[in-house]
Amino acid sequence: MKDMKIPYKTYLTESEMPKYWFNLNAFMPGKHPPFLNGVTGKPCTAEELEKVFCKECVKQELNFTDKEIEIPKGIRDFYRTFRPSPIVRAYFLEKFLDTPAEIYYKFEGNNTSGSHKLNSASAQAYYAKEQGLKFITTETGAGQWGTALSMAAAFYGLGLEVFMVKASAEQKPYRKEVIRTYGANVVPSPSETTEAGRKILKEFPDTGGSLGCAIAEAVEKAVKIPGCRYVLGSVLDHVLLHQTVIGLESKAVLDGYGVYPDLIVGCMGGGSNFGGLIAPYMADRLQGKCKTEFLGVEPASCPSVSRGKYAYDYCDSAKITPLAKMYTLGCGFMPPSEHAGGLRYHGMSPIISKLCNDGYIGVKAVKQTSVFKAALDFAKCEGILPAPESAHAIKAVADAAIECRETGEKKVILFGLTGTGYFDLAAYKQYNDGVMKDYVPTDKELEKGFSTIPRIR
Amino acid sequence: MKDMKIPYKTYLTESEMPKYWFNLNAFMPGKHPPFLNGVTGKPCTAEELEKVFCKECVKQELNFTDKEIEIPKGIRDFYRTFRPSPIVRAYFLEKFLDTPAEIYYKFEGNNTSGSHKLNSASAQAYYAKEQGLKFITTETGAGQWGTALSMAAAFYGLGLEVFMVKASAEQKPYRKEVIRTYGANVVPSPSETTEAGRKILKEFPDTGGSLGCAIAEAVEKAVKIPGCRYVLGSVLDHVLLHQTVIGLESKAVLDGYGVYPDLIVGCMGGGSNFGGLIAPYMADRLQGKCKTEFLGVEPASCPSVSRGKYAYDYCDSAKITPLAKMYTLGCGFMPPSEHAGGLRYHGMSPIISKLCNDGYIGVKAVKQTSVFKAALDFAKCEGILPAPESAHAIKAVADAAIECRETGEKKVILFGLTGTGYFDLAAYKQYNDGVMKDYVPTDKELEKGFSTIPRIR
Repeated sequence: MKDMKIPYKTYLTESEMPKYWFNLNAFMPGKHPPFLNGVTGKPCTAEELEKVFCKECVKQELNFTDKEIEIPKGIRDFYRTFRPSPIVRAYFLEKFLDTPAEIYYKFEGNNTSGSHKLNSASAQAYYAKEQGLKFITTETGAGQWGTALSMAAAFYGLGLEVFMVKASAEQKPYRKEVIRTYGANVVPSPSETTEAGRKILKEFPDTGGSLGCAIAEAVEKAVKIPGCRYVLGSVLDHVLLHQTVIGLESKAVLDGYGVYPDLIVGCMGGGSNFGGLIAPYMADRLQGKCKTEFLGVEPASCPSVSRGKYAYDYCDSAKITPLAKMYTLGCGFMPPSEHAGGLRYHGMSPIISKLCNDGYIGVKAVKQTSVFKAALDFAKCEGILPAPESAHAIKAVADAAIECRETGEKKVILFGLTGTGYFDLAAYKQYNDGVMKDYVPTDKELEKGFSTIPRIR
Repeated sequence: MKDMKIPYKTYLTESEMPKYWFNLNAFMPGKHPPFLNGVTGKPCTAEELEKVFCKECVKQELNFTDKEIEIPKGIRDFYRTFRPSPIVRAYFLEKFLDTPAEIYYKFEGNNTSGSHKLNSASAQAYYAKEQGLKFITTETGAGQWGTALSMAAAFYGLGLEVFMVKASAEQKPYRKEVIRTYGANVVPSPSETTEAGRKILKEFPDTGGSLGCAIAEAVEKAVKIPGCRYVLGSVLDHVLLHQTVIGLESKAVLDGYGVYPDLIVGCMGGGSNFGGLIAPYMADRLQGKCKTEFLGVEPASCPSVSRGKYAYDYCDSAKITPLAKMYTLGCGFMPPSEHAGGLRYHGMSPIISKLCNDGYIGVKAVKQTSVFKAALDFAKCEGILPAPESAHAIKAVADAAIECRETGEKKVILFGLTGTGYFDLAAYKQYNDGVMKDYVPTDKELEKGFSTIPRIR
């Protein structure tokens, strides 16, 4: 084993923790195209967005100028309960892979939600409370976001209704129970409680649901109840902003050891964790200060960027949300329920999409069984059972590290270990039993998805 | 909220982590009575114990003189993957309880096993590997120990068979799956694979099993297979020794802030986590250096100390292990399967038992529904969903803190938050659904248990 000159695990002290989020939008080579109102086709105004989202979040969403945005003390107080998260030098994984590469990971799973999602959940719940709201709604797929928001809502004393993708609610009764334990109401989606849900159920009575559909239900409810707003766990710029605490903490620790990554890898569902991890490094790259490569990893079963189109599309399947310019498989695309874990979203963060389109981020799609194999290897040598989502990054990192073994390159790799797989044991069981299958959509299936992308301009 | 002068969460740095365990036995007011051979009634020799346990563990078990025992580098390497664990100042719980008390907890749940168990699992797996063994066996109740040992066995490259209490294996299929994911074989106990198991099944065909029975099966198998030994997760002195890393880290952090606890609280199943937490403080007390009070908390459904007898008894229900002088409800005592979580053991660590008997440790038995209520309050304000076991301590701490509210006393309370409840959602569901019941054995039920204590001298 290497000499462990750098500690295996490093935490910032409380006083070193970030007091500002990093606004990547202020560094972008040109703004990404704005949201469009789905009815008028015109750019969304703050007023329109504020009907759905909290005021402060809308302000952040439309902020393309301030490089830093202060994290309010009320949020930093709650951050203390689960942050800082550690930067780990993966000595044991390096040894297992027999690679000259240095591998670091930022582990965001050490909290009850089991993922990075709590970073934005806290912020959004805090702002809702500050705005005087009593109630918020959201959707959840794999359940991490719903759990995170239930924790934040409990902490700040807010009511919460979570529309949980039905397949997930059924496959993960315990995820549902955690959310309930924190006091939130869980509604399997599609449900009969909204127009959007009823419409989908009529067309597809046996559907396991989708994130897009759950979003539509949660938005519909938020708009209809006075004093209620909708809260989203990924995709949007303000969510990515809150997630930059990941990248800021990572950079603060690594800078302290004089370590600068050559390659940063992360899984991409909606893109916010990856965006948050890379933000300060990407700003360096955009300013010509480094040559770091960025690699986003997505499931082959839901290849939003690698096989998607860069186009204006709805954020939800019911087509009630604004349109975002993003990589998309079409808002009607839905991978089979047993695939892609929490990375089932048809679209991608507008910021990440633009950076992919501009050539700053590379993308790799990986198959599910190879992801679980990498997850098991990782668990056995690093001790942590990773979330299947995070294991997409592990798979790509392992591939890169093995390439280094062959070339002898001592590449410095940083990746985001976004969460733990403690509530994903049904999927691990499938893999352990040897019955897990890989799914890769055919071109024809993709065409069907693309046909749901609206024709704009 | 108080001013947070002390950080919410403090970790030691890697270089500050303990390099020695603390041998409480070297500080005890007289040795506790030795193990007796169940057949001859004479004190067990090292040779006898080495047939069952690893050599180094036996050496530690019989070491009453060395105040410190070095933690080998091979164990400290693995400790790095999940240690140090944080000391948390429970500001939010203090606020919720409106108490002048200062509450600190040492959180041992931030690892995939979800508990402190990994501290001893690593040590025992390491020693087994060093001794040249290929295979180890163990039992698990709630599943935390089995998970911990599967992680350690995977890390060191050892084969492992886990006899899992049948009721638990059925109630917690995902616990079973984690253990399997790390490569171990899980056998629901009682099983047909051992004489002990077959005997119990014949007498009680519908039994959900017990820790005592699972221990008997695991020991039987270890003794029969060449190159195999048995590994135990609690009760024994060497297990408590390995757990002293909890108390040492706690004391190192708190000493740094000039904080010395007036009261230390922990849950007790077999007693090793509580013993490990209190060890350095208890040594101070035994040497007259402090007046700290110690409170062990056990389930009212399995009140080993508060209603048990201090007597020689078997460590297992099949009566194949040596006899230990301990508080016991009788090796035949078995609480109903839905009660007491991982605190179902009929006996108690000989060290803890002696300290209880000598008046150094107070004991409180608490009812299950009050424990879950305390768990929910804690989860909502501190963010962590606690293990039901750990929540026994939370309940007692809340009671003590509320007492301080009434007396105005600024007591400094430290407690062990031994683990997380991520695999205990079935129990939380019972509580959330309002169908959880309290069970307190009648005197008649206890008498039946006591009748299984052997008559020795």
